[in-house]
Amino acid sequence: MPSPYTLVATDPESRARAGILQTRRGTVETPVFMPVGTQGTVKAVSPDELRALGAKIILGNTYHLHVRPGEKLIAGQGGLHKFMNWDRTILTDSGGFQVFSLAKLRKVTEDGVHFQNHLDGTPTFIGPERSMEIQRDLGSDIVMAFDECPPHPCTHEEAARSLDLTLRWAQRCRDWWDAQPEEDRPLVFGIVQGSSHPDLRERSARGLVDIGFDSYAVGGVSVGEPEPEMMQAVENAVPFLPEDRARYAMGLGTPPQMLEMIARGIDMFDCVLPTRIARNGTAFTRHGTVALKNAANAEDPSPIEDGCPCPACQGFSRAYLRHLIKAEEILGLRLVSLHNLHFYLSLMRQAREAILGGTFAAFRRDFVEGYAPRPGLREPEGT
Amino acid sequence: MPSPYTLVATDPESRARAGILQTRRGTVETPVFMPVGTQGTVKAVSPDELRALGAKIILGNTYHLHVRPGEKLIAGQGGLHKFMNWDRTILTDSGGFQVFSLAKLRKVTEDGVHFQNHLDGTPTFIGPERSMEIQRDLGSDIVMAFDECPPHPCTHEEAARSLDLTLRWAQRCRDWWDAQPEEDRPLVFGIVQGSSHPDLRERSARGLVDIGFDSYAVGGVSVGEPEPEMMQAVENAVPFLPEDRARYAMGLGTPPQMLEMIARGIDMFDCVLPTRIARNGTAFTRHGTVALKNAANAEDPSPIEDGCPCPACQGFSRAYLRHLIKAEEILGLRLVSLHNLHFYLSLMRQAREAILGGTFAAFRRDFVEGYAPRPGLREPEGT
Repeated sequence: MPSPYTLVATDPESRARAGILQTRRGTVETPVFMPVGTQGTVKAVSPDELRALGAKIILGNTYHLHVRPGEKLIAGQGGLHKFMNWDRTILTDSGGFQVFSLAKLRKVTEDGVHFQNHLDGTPTFIGPERSMEIQRDLGSDIVMAFDECPPHPCTHEEAARSLDLTLRWAQRCRDWWDAQPEEDRPLVFGIVQGSSHPDLRERSARGLVDIGFDSYAVGGVSVGEPEPEMMQAVENAVPFLPEDRARYAMGLGTPPQMLEMIARGIDMFDCVLPTRIARNGTAFTRHGTVALKNAANAEDPSPIEDGCPCPACQGFSRAYLRHLIKAEEILGLRLVSLHNLHFYLSLMRQAREAILGGTFAAFRRDFVEGYAPRPGLREPEGT
Repeated sequence: MPSPYTLVATDPESRARAGILQTRRGTVETPVFMPVGTQGTVKAVSPDELRALGAKIILGNTYHLHVRPGEKLIAGQGGLHKFMNWDRTILTDSGGFQVFSLAKLRKVTEDGVHFQNHLDGTPTFIGPERSMEIQRDLGSDIVMAFDECPPHPCTHEEAARSLDLTLRWAQRCRDWWDAQPEEDRPLVFGIVQGSSHPDLRERSARGLVDIGFDSYAVGGVSVGEPEPEMMQAVENAVPFLPEDRARYAMGLGTPPQMLEMIARGIDMFDCVLPTRIARNGTAFTRHGTVALKNAANAEDPSPIEDGCPCPACQGFSRAYLRHLIKAEEILGLRLVSLHNLHFYLSLMRQAREAILGGTFAAFRRDFVEGYAPRPGLREPEGT
């Protein structure tokens, strides 16, 4: 299986690397951030705006789109790309995370998961083959293998049982695609599980590589565990993943966390934080987050961040944004969403430039030191 | 006083006319629709989008901006244009309508109105001079004289008392501006009141013309009265307003109503309908409104209206818009807002072209006949 990932440069002082991921809809320079389009739209933002921000790839949520409006309806409309008017790459998650975080009355069997959906309680089943069918019907360019996502904390015994099930499901996902006509195949990524147990992360990674996927993700992170455990989960998986495949850390994180993950060999990220906290009026800056509602911004004529080229900072003051947010005007959360997405997308471009230019260590140190961390900002993926 | 309005063409079969209104920020071709920017933003829409839709003038609400964030804050930020990043013409209403429709514990005196604002009950006073000061501080290009807006229905005696007060207030507004340095003066419009009483509409119009304003509005319409009464209120006022001044019917209406008003000599309109019903998923078409939530749209790959050049119709299907609206995604109401604003702005441009081309009678007849009226859609102005 030829690799879709081309390694372009590595950082001499860490595992950080710059690369290019080739999908059937174009090339994606890594490290890359993927805005989350949970329900067929990145919240509050238009496809044109995403293109203008330089997004090359976005994420769609298999569970949400299956529940509403349904993958058959979307397929009948020409697929998710046409439905939402996005012609660049789409990665879809497996549905596993939401089945385990949102759905009700779950029953897990060897076959898959029976559950009631969170909207109207309709009894539903998703297993590995079903997840692949849904993602195929959506027209995804990068499909994730169906996985069980155990909660945190999780005993060694429980995590082992779960990841072995996930490995068997991964094999079934691989088999399902191998039975499809080659020309229709998207990229298929496996998901490393294993909770916070180093030996299980290794076992999971090795097992997936034995099956063979186009690239690999680290899942079961950013599920409520302390940040050091999250870093270790990645450190325990990455050494067992091939250098010539992309690596995707699912559902995170804060800006410093992403740089730390890049230093640990991660290439791809998705996170709802930029758009979610925007809707509450919180903006990212080099020096941490800013709650625009605060009275300190009431008469501040400066933009969210001086020198920022995003549409919010180029046209509007903190005073105006604060007014919009307090008045619950949609334009306020639109503009902050654009700023925050620009911040994430731009941070990844800067990290890539730093890796290519051999200055990543300084870039990472300066950014992380200059960024005032705000605890409690981590959120689970794509809910 | 030189007129800001230049008559360009008239319709031989009605009072319809095409003209140009000159403000200190540019020219406005009439008939014209003014999107309503109640709280310093046209709901869900960005200034760039408004410019792209061809909007030349928008409306700001004096009452709302006074209550939050306050005209002094906006003046400190360089005025409303700079605050909201809109460099074209802004008309502000007088605050009268909202004082009489939203505020609590009103007490009307010869001086003005004491009330408690609708947000936090702060005791507030707005009279004619105060309204002029607020609109001056906002930096409005077209200021409306402060008026009392009586409810519907209204006896002859009550309407007469009210409009005489409004006339005295109008004189005080005129006097206030005459005492200002000439170079700072925006245009100032008087507002005809008189409820549904023909003699009072005439008395109000004649009284305002005696005082002398840059142009004139018809207020106290679209306040709950039957449509024929609304038409008559305009018919009873227009003959007493000068041909060489613009005429603005406040706070309406449906697309057919606007064409009927144009036929009665009206040049300018504002209405919250296009953006308000968009937020509920209702779109305007040549054949009436469409509730996009309806199941009939679930798998409809066509746009809201075939051939419509708006950003919603150029990129997105009814099926997708229905999905967004049902999923309560902001992009849905954004796109329908854009479509509806385009519909209103475009309708006025088409009416102007028809007047210029001598085909207004046929245009009006064809449009009104083709449009399936939907009762109950009229809404009060700018609330």
